[in-house]
Amino acid sequence: MIDRQARPIAAALVAALAGADQPKTRERNVTISSDTRGVYAIAPTPFQPDGALDGASIDRMVDFYQAAGVDGLTILGIMGEAPKLDAAEALEVVARIVRRARVPVIVGVSAPGFAAMRSLARAAMDLGAAAVMIAPVPSLRTDDQIAGYFAQAAEAIGPDVPWVLQDYPLTLAVQMTPAVIRRIVTDNPACVMLKHEDWPGLEKISALRRFQREGSLRPLSILTGNGALFLDFEMERGADGAMTGYAFPELLVELVRLSAAGRRDAAHDLFDAHLPYLRYEQQQGVGLAVRKYVMMTRGIIASDAQRKPAGALSAQGRAEVDYLLARLAARTA
Amino acid sequence: MIDRQARPIAAALVAALAGADQPKTRERNVTISSDTRGVYAIAPTPFQPDGALDGASIDRMVDFYQAAGVDGLTILGIMGEAPKLDAAEALEVVARIVRRARVPVIVGVSAPGFAAMRSLARAAMDLGAAAVMIAPVPSLRTDDQIAGYFAQAAEAIGPDVPWVLQDYPLTLAVQMTPAVIRRIVTDNPACVMLKHEDWPGLEKISALRRFQREGSLRPLSILTGNGALFLDFEMERGADGAMTGYAFPELLVELVRLSAAGRRDAAHDLFDAHLPYLRYEQQQGVGLAVRKYVMMTRGIIASDAQRKPAGALSAQGRAEVDYLLARLAARTA
Amino acid sequence: MIDRQARPIAAALVAALAGADQPKTRERNVTISSDTRGVYAIAPTPFQPDGALDGASIDRMVDFYQAAGVDGLTILGIMGEAPKLDAAEALEVVARIVRRARVPVIVGVSAPGFAAMRSLARAAMDLGAAAVMIAPVPSLRTDDQIAGYFAQAAEAIGPDVPWVLQDYPLTLAVQMTPAVIRRIVTDNPACVMLKHEDWPGLEKISALRRFQREGSLRPLSILTGNGALFLDFEMERGADGAMTGYAFPELLVELVRLSAAGRRDAAHDLFDAHLPYLRYEQQQGVGLAVRKYVMMTRGIIASDAQRKPAGALSAQGRAEVDYLLARLAARTA
Amino acid sequence: MIDRQARPIAAALVAALAGADQPKTRERNVTISSDTRGVYAIAPTPFQPDGALDGASIDRMVDFYQAAGVDGLTILGIMGEAPKLDAAEALEVVARIVRRARVPVIVGVSAPGFAAMRSLARAAMDLGAAAVMIAPVPSLRTDDQIAGYFAQAAEAIGPDVPWVLQDYPLTLAVQMTPAVIRRIVTDNPACVMLKHEDWPGLEKISALRRFQREGSLRPLSILTGNGALFLDFEMERGADGAMTGYAFPELLVELVRLSAAGRRDAAHDLFDAHLPYLRYEQQQGVGLAVRKYVMMTRGIIASDAQRKPAGALSAQGRAEVDYLLARLAARTA
Repeated sequence: MIDRQARPIAAALVAALAGADQPKTRERNVTISSDTRGVYAIAPTPFQPDGALDGASIDRMVDFYQAAGVDGLTILGIMGEAPKLDAAEALEVVARIVRRARVPVIVGVSAPGFAAMRSLARAAMDLGAAAVMIAPVPSLRTDDQIAGYFAQAAEAIGPDVPWVLQDYPLTLAVQMTPAVIRRIVTDNPACVMLKHEDWPGLEKISALRRFQREGSLRPLSILTGNGALFLDFEMERGADGAMTGYAFPELLVELVRLSAAGRRDAAHDLFDAHLPYLRYEQQQGVGLAVRKYVMMTRGIIASDAQRKPAGALSAQGRAEVDYLLARLAARTA
Repeated sequence: MIDRQARPIAAALVAALAGADQPKTRERNVTISSDTRGVYAIAPTPFQPDGALDGASIDRMVDFYQAAGVDGLTILGIMGEAPKLDAAEALEVVARIVRRARVPVIVGVSAPGFAAMRSLARAAMDLGAAAVMIAPVPSLRTDDQIAGYFAQAAEAIGPDVPWVLQDYPLTLAVQMTPAVIRRIVTDNPACVMLKHEDWPGLEKISALRRFQREGSLRPLSILTGNGALFLDFEMERGADGAMTGYAFPELLVELVRLSAAGRRDAAHDLFDAHLPYLRYEQQQGVGLAVRKYVMMTRGIIASDAQRKPAGALSAQGRAEVDYLLARLAARTA
Repeated sequence: MIDRQARPIAAALVAALAGADQPKTRERNVTISSDTRGVYAIAPTPFQPDGALDGASIDRMVDFYQAAGVDGLTILGIMGEAPKLDAAEALEVVARIVRRARVPVIVGVSAPGFAAMRSLARAAMDLGAAAVMIAPVPSLRTDDQIAGYFAQAAEAIGPDVPWVLQDYPLTLAVQMTPAVIRRIVTDNPACVMLKHEDWPGLEKISALRRFQREGSLRPLSILTGNGALFLDFEMERGADGAMTGYAFPELLVELVRLSAAGRRDAAHDLFDAHLPYLRYEQQQGVGLAVRKYVMMTRGIIASDAQRKPAGALSAQGRAEVDYLLARLAARTA
Repeated sequence: MIDRQARPIAAALVAALAGADQPKTRERNVTISSDTRGVYAIAPTPFQPDGALDGASIDRMVDFYQAAGVDGLTILGIMGEAPKLDAAEALEVVARIVRRARVPVIVGVSAPGFAAMRSLARAAMDLGAAAVMIAPVPSLRTDDQIAGYFAQAAEAIGPDVPWVLQDYPLTLAVQMTPAVIRRIVTDNPACVMLKHEDWPGLEKISALRRFQREGSLRPLSILTGNGALFLDFEMERGADGAMTGYAFPELLVELVRLSAAGRRDAAHDLFDAHLPYLRYEQQQGVGLAVRKYVMMTRGIIASDAQRKPAGALSAQGRAEVDYLLARLAARTA
């Protein structure tokens, strides 16, 4: 077959995207581990109104997140509209963000099949990503199917690529018990982090930490998602931080800091001030529209355009968001 | 962004794959229409035991299907393990098969997002495909969601690409009523064919043909799938032929011929002889293993290897297939 | 068959449950209509620690809700553990609550089949219920299936029984567009109320009210559920009130009053004070355990026991609830 | 509460249904065990055209099945339209069939909750049933959820009631691995039989029998469903017989006999003759309409009426069935 021809072209593409004169090699990758703590912002993918990628907004967004104090970025996740990019575009986004960011970048590589997952994972690592994130395909049901899937995924991306296990039953329709998560982590040494996004999920964090105290589970970083709707208590249950796309990452950073410092009431006071808006943003489907609108309002991205299919924000919805932001500003003033 | 750079590379890839000296342009494409009849074989993707694409087997397989008298080929469908290929591999397969085939080739372009769908669809047409086939994403529920999805898909691939609507609730988890199919066909002029794979589905064919008699639905080619388990009656209900991967396409060809000729008893006699094996092959999940095993046994492909995840055929399963094939041979001798 | 024998026995059972000397006839039923406004509390079913029905707690609970100012009660819903009662127990609960309550009582009659739905609906009305509530079975997918289901349900319970349409996709797995709701309401004159529990759901309220302004939908009471997580904005979008099981129904009553009076900021201030706890209670699965625990803590029911299968509240969970309640008390003091 | 009053009424109902002068006590129950072999016909529930239960047809149907040589009956299953009966009707059907039948009767008691399951199970056993059959609720996903559900179900019906585990993923949406089935059987001594209805399912039978050879699974009767579409090979894989509703139970009886006698070719010859019709009958949704039509045509039941919701058989569908039956008659003449 023409395999021989295609591969060099792909390699050349990766090289071109990374910038030919300053090759970003695997040695230079900033990485994550089972000790990773803090806030990893889930970044949206900025588009121009016509649907083209918006590189200037990508750069500004990366700078914004870093100024807000995040410890890392997670890109090409569900919120990043990853399935709406084709393979070349996904690489473009990875290349641009990795080149700009000084913090570790985790790249979502979830795909319907392992060949595409492998291609993106290895190219992303070649471009300088810190790790990749893998969600299960929605058809998985039994414990064995789930564990088997991640074993095959890990084999596909290769043993040298650290990865994040995404557990998000509400959207992904796959239910993993704490015991299954333990099995996946135990079976796959390169799995160093759990993106915890079960709902309700507080007991799951407690169960995993109990496994570790009992010695049946090795160290594992747990960052929580779900729009931070339970971040106040998740930290108290043993989470290492947050990985979510809340439009005010500075809240996440400060909340994680207060919680780590044991300042419980202060953490809840801060959280409660954000909760009315945070709850609004966390709505399934329309949440991304809210986030992009707020990020646009804050001057971070130029447009709140999404690619199709997109959940829109009506005029009344925007007015509600404005009202909530005004109340938030008054309360945190 | 680097859009400008990436696109020429993709175009060059397509050109290289198609063969530089003999450019296959859109003008040369064999095409399908709402009048298309006959048998379109759903082709598997032959792999070598190590998982690499097997080009020689692809060629032999194309020749086999044409010798069996099929009217066209459908590639990169679910049975073709399309999600297990990465983007470059998918193009390789399209290029090789289109170059070899004298009959129209329909290319499955179902994808989690429209950008990847568009990229593959347009590249496939540039390589000489006759049409593309689109399945719904599994999350679609309401009639409006389904119709909206196909409107956006059609917009994504462009108005000049003829396409096949795939209706396969058992695997795809999306249920389309006859009225929704009519709405999709009416809204999208480039939709010229229905791959009918509902189960039970006889009444759906009758309902669509009734719509046409009543004047509420324009002409539409209907080819049926489901491993041909109901092809005998589907033809009598008004199907134009079959689009399925049964390992004996010569049965499909002959059955469609007999049925079109009005030789009902002869058609059923032939069908009934195949049914014991056909039913075995039509099992979900393990069906592809059976088909690849039989095609390997028949000398059409070199290996029955599948990429992971794969439904395996046990030793006892192979023995059962052998037993059924021996009985089939005796009965059709 | 022995139909003749069985029916009088059932009738006698109903009579015995209702209290023989004070027959509660249909004429005496308090009723609801498309003009109904206010708060309908979704009531849990109190059990003793051994799983038996707790009649004394039922009475105390009814009194509590009425003292809190609710306009009606909804019993035997999902939160009421209705599927965990057998047919005789369901009638006992209806009889006891209807006899005690001075406000209208809506009885959930959702069932896997129409015969059981009819039996419970008619017996409940005979016992003095104001209306019944019907949720779709989870297998419904297409618009026609959904509309057809409610047409058959309405036929089963009879044209003289007013009913509430429950729209709760997150738990019931059935997605109804505004247009399908309009179709159901239009087709079934006895459908007078929507229990709105879609999420996100603000636009759905707006769409239904727009239908009414445009004249394509007749009057319809809309009460909202979802644990009141969006009640602040749902009222502003046009909801007539709340139907949910929040453990502080006095909040619902006051919020609806403030909102109806146009006191927007005051309504949000009150809502925001409750939101940290409200959000905790609204968790799927564990939410009922939280509510029963709080209602037990408040002295309303004697035990927070649930029948199996039950979502439990851990010691840490209870401590979190206690912490949130203390903060709530401080904030609303 | 009025528990004291309600229970005696229920007991009186059971007594009345069973026939006061000839009490059928638990001692008289014919029973099943892990050694049970043969054919258990899944019986439909005959209705009159107006939807009332048809007692005369029930009696005639029982006689027919026994004349056909079945070893037992299974009633109130999915095919028996069990969810369409109310509680009193379900008892009527059980009472009438158990009184008439000389073979063991298994009663489906699947219910959305354990109280209703328990009520029906205990009443059915009091009326003389041999065992009950339990299907999982469709929401179960993880291995622990499935095993936990059956533990709670077994606790609900009581340790003295033998029961059949129904494994039917296509309709019930719950996927049990062989290891989970082993766990359920091991945990619950009263589980004596598996109604195997997975598809594809041959390897599952082999896996369970392998467990037994290895000593990790105690004896367990396995009867197969799925409309007998794979009964020929299921027997060869180790099934003990069939439990399905095929309208020609005499085929099932003879096929099981031939297979048990080691007459492989004769068994397949017989099976293949039935397969064209059998495949038609086995269609989801419409299958019951086909069966009732054929049983009506054969004079077994007076009407093919179903209660709503019902899958109808069109005029063309009936003609197709007639055609298949004529061919079947010619082939088995």
